[in-house]
Amino acid sequence: MNKIEHLGIAVKDIEQANTLYEKLLGVAPYKQEAVESEAVITSFFKVGDSKIELLASTREDGPIGKFISKKGEGIHHIAFDVDDIELELDRLEKEGFQLINKVPKPGADNKLVAFLHPKSTNGVLIELCQEKSVDQDITK
Amino acid sequence: MNKIEHLGIAVKDIEQANTLYEKLLGVAPYKQEAVESEAVITSFFKVGDSKIELLASTREDGPIGKFISKKGEGIHHIAFDVDDIELELDRLEKEGFQLINKVPKPGADNKLVAFLHPKSTNGVLIELCQEKSVDQDITK
Repeated sequence: MNKIEHLGIAVKDIEQANTLYEKLLGVAPYKQEAVESEAVITSFFKVGDSKIELLASTREDGPIGKFISKKGEGIHHIAFDVDDIELELDRLEKEGFQLINKVPKPGADNKLVAFLHPKSTNGVLIELCQEKSVDQDITK
Repeated sequence: MNKIEHLGIAVKDIEQANTLYEKLLGVAPYKQEAVESEAVITSFFKVGDSKIELLASTREDGPIGKFISKKGEGIHHIAFDVDDIELELDRLEKEGFQLINKVPKPGADNKLVAFLHPKSTNGVLIELCQEKSVDQDITK
């Protein structure tokens, strides 16, 4: 794991949260992006070498909508940057971690992503992400 | 906010969690430290320019013990590194954030720390922390 790539925070209202996190962090979001497959609108803020990703659901029955219904707004996941996501998934599965995605999928911010199940990581939803390049885009 | 200084994760059993996060992150904890005022044992792992802090309660009625009783294990707080914690607390209070600590207090890992209330930050418990130096140790 190279670094904390980003922290995902589930919010109800992306505009309200954008305003609040801009005040908190002292910087504006550098990107807003919809990920239709996950039914979310995301905003990204740079903080040092990492990012804060705000996630608002576009549907009540999407993953973030369900998370907020159950637990309320708050931290949703940690994402770690890795060089080779398939190699890391293979290593972690052999170490006994439970994978939600055995095959990486396209995520926001030009990444290939895969999640580990919180049951195997002390309740923490962990995302691995690898920057996409033309050579590495195995999903097309 | 200079960077994500660390992410705090509430765990039941620090030894079990140390073993698991060592496998996950591929590095051993560089420090284990008790903070008696918070009734916690903490372990720190380096990940890039940030840290993961595991927190286990030494008492059921301590802040981490209560958190786990209510919400289960999982991400407890985000900590941001700041240059001048008093200046930031003053700025954030003026911006409308609710402070849990108006005056910084000593935290783990040689830091002065203060928390913002999750009610004013979309459900996220946020810690500000500033590295202590002899000159800056205003708590003595």
